[in-house]
Amino acid sequence: MLRIEELDTPSLICDLDVMEANLKLMAERCRALGIALRPHTKSHKIPALAHLQIASGAQGITCQKLGDAEVMAAAGIDDILIPYNIVGKVKTERLARLARQIRVLVAIDSEATASGISAPASEIGAAVGILIELDTGSHRCGVQNPEEAAALARSVARFPGLQFTGLMTYPSRLEAKPFIDRTVALIRQAGLEVSVISGGGTGLESVSKELGCTETRSGSYLWEGGSRVGKSEDLHPSHCPLRVLTVVVSTAVPGQMILDAGQKTLTARPGDPYGYIVEDPGAKIRGMSMEHGHVDIRECSRRFQVGDRVSVIPLHGETTTNLHDTMYGVRKGVVEAIWKIAGRGRVQ
Amino acid sequence: MLRIEELDTPSLICDLDVMEANLKLMAERCRALGIALRPHTKSHKIPALAHLQIASGAQGITCQKLGDAEVMAAAGIDDILIPYNIVGKVKTERLARLARQIRVLVAIDSEATASGISAPASEIGAAVGILIELDTGSHRCGVQNPEEAAALARSVARFPGLQFTGLMTYPSRLEAKPFIDRTVALIRQAGLEVSVISGGGTGLESVSKELGCTETRSGSYLWEGGSRVGKSEDLHPSHCPLRVLTVVVSTAVPGQMILDAGQKTLTARPGDPYGYIVEDPGAKIRGMSMEHGHVDIRECSRRFQVGDRVSVIPLHGETTTNLHDTMYGVRKGVVEAIWKIAGRGRVQ
Repeated sequence: MLRIEELDTPSLICDLDVMEANLKLMAERCRALGIALRPHTKSHKIPALAHLQIASGAQGITCQKLGDAEVMAAAGIDDILIPYNIVGKVKTERLARLARQIRVLVAIDSEATASGISAPASEIGAAVGILIELDTGSHRCGVQNPEEAAALARSVARFPGLQFTGLMTYPSRLEAKPFIDRTVALIRQAGLEVSVISGGGTGLESVSKELGCTETRSGSYLWEGGSRVGKSEDLHPSHCPLRVLTVVVSTAVPGQMILDAGQKTLTARPGDPYGYIVEDPGAKIRGMSMEHGHVDIRECSRRFQVGDRVSVIPLHGETTTNLHDTMYGVRKGVVEAIWKIAGRGRVQ
Repeated sequence: MLRIEELDTPSLICDLDVMEANLKLMAERCRALGIALRPHTKSHKIPALAHLQIASGAQGITCQKLGDAEVMAAAGIDDILIPYNIVGKVKTERLARLARQIRVLVAIDSEATASGISAPASEIGAAVGILIELDTGSHRCGVQNPEEAAALARSVARFPGLQFTGLMTYPSRLEAKPFIDRTVALIRQAGLEVSVISGGGTGLESVSKELGCTETRSGSYLWEGGSRVGKSEDLHPSHCPLRVLTVVVSTAVPGQMILDAGQKTLTARPGDPYGYIVEDPGAKIRGMSMEHGHVDIRECSRRFQVGDRVSVIPLHGETTTNLHDTMYGVRKGVVEAIWKIAGRGRVQ
């Protein structure tokens, strides 16, 4: 029996009891709302966790990268949305092949993207499901108004190899309701069916429902507990299953200790503090070198020594997970699972 | 012959001509100064590049993690400094074994660390070279004054399995000269030899020399050209071999284009802009989602379209490299090398 104490540091740990509680909570929330849950797996990139999400009631998954989707499909997941414009010959050919194996939906916001996907898909007889991405206020991707959206939907319907399926937006905002309603009306007038409207953002499930979304792409709920999404004041240890197990490597500078986890282990994203120290929340990670976590211990009750183990709840679960190759699933101190973070590094 | 145009996006590219020029420049600078060069390989984590550095005159390498050092040793590098307190039974045993295979130096700043390394090293008859880390102003690790340093050196000399070898500091600062001089004097009075004084920081080679350092742990010079160390105003394309090859995936929002490279591909470290766009420096990466680069194109001379390829010089070469599994070495448009970033993810 492998115990947590035997793991070397730094190690990325998932408390299974807490993670499963978060999993159940979100599944129940979506069931109660009457909205399908299509978890965004970019926050973990682990096929075993995607399978747990589906077993708890999710109708499929979301992957941000085609490479991630291929990993998930190879692990047996058969319904994947990629809410991202897939561009370039290498990728569109891979996408077409994937769509021959499993149900694939992708979001697009231009005819150029539609055309690029259509060519290889029609060539091999695949049908790629297409959602039109709407820019309902995030100003990232997405068509700018209902008329453009409807025009693109009609265009998609004419391309061979594409199956117009519906709409996608991120994040879900109530202000977007007129945009979405008008788009749906225009598309229906054109004789097309809008069978999927996909909304996004953990904590925004009820907004998605109010917007008329058929599904929600919630993702970070596994790590941060229900609607807590990365704000340091919301980090409560009892809802956060993710830990980076570290060790104190230096106490040479007065009022400070150094952990063996820095920007390459915890995250390079800024935060103050950079993470929550479970053993003594008075200890604050105030700085990060590449491999050093700089902890202010002046308000600590505990006296830390070189060699002490320290568990850090990372501020940004998703960017932290993306730095590691392995995650350890732990229950009551015992390692129950060793997961490869199989989608990590699949940048293409 | 594989050409750069055939690579999928995003891909991490190294322009071999530029990288080799940077390699040569630093080797010549150190030769002219009369200081040994021990490149910090954390900026690339690629054994082939470490070998190139040694072939150009470096006397050995620096690795920030034991896991990296093991990768480099397995690839035939036989002289490695780990300027980091190695703590914990699993790691100190690995360190001792490594010290049986190759020359290993490590930095420490406490008797606790010394004692931890000594036990397994003496048990298997290894000799681990020890540098005492001095805190000469960075307030991260390091003993606080010459008397502490000398006391720790004497203590190290008494531990079996350890070989007291000298001193280490980071970064090299002229203000540290009295600290270093006094420490050397005290240690010599104790009858010990200070054969290595290791200074750090690309661009600080002459400071290291003035401080009396025998070697410099310069690292980022491969990526950013001589003394340019990550400041956006210093990024000049002709000295920066690192590129992230991306593609435009959306131009739906007016005044903006979206690249298929965000925080998980370029870096999660903040910057404004987040990187330099070679094809049109008027295009500024102003925001980053996980997988989207948000580019302000209002001051562009060029009109970008979906499907256009865009080369980004990342602002932070080291954190960018750490996100990728593969780097492509390219010369005049032809891929000459495909390197696995073998040390990436070796967080332990």
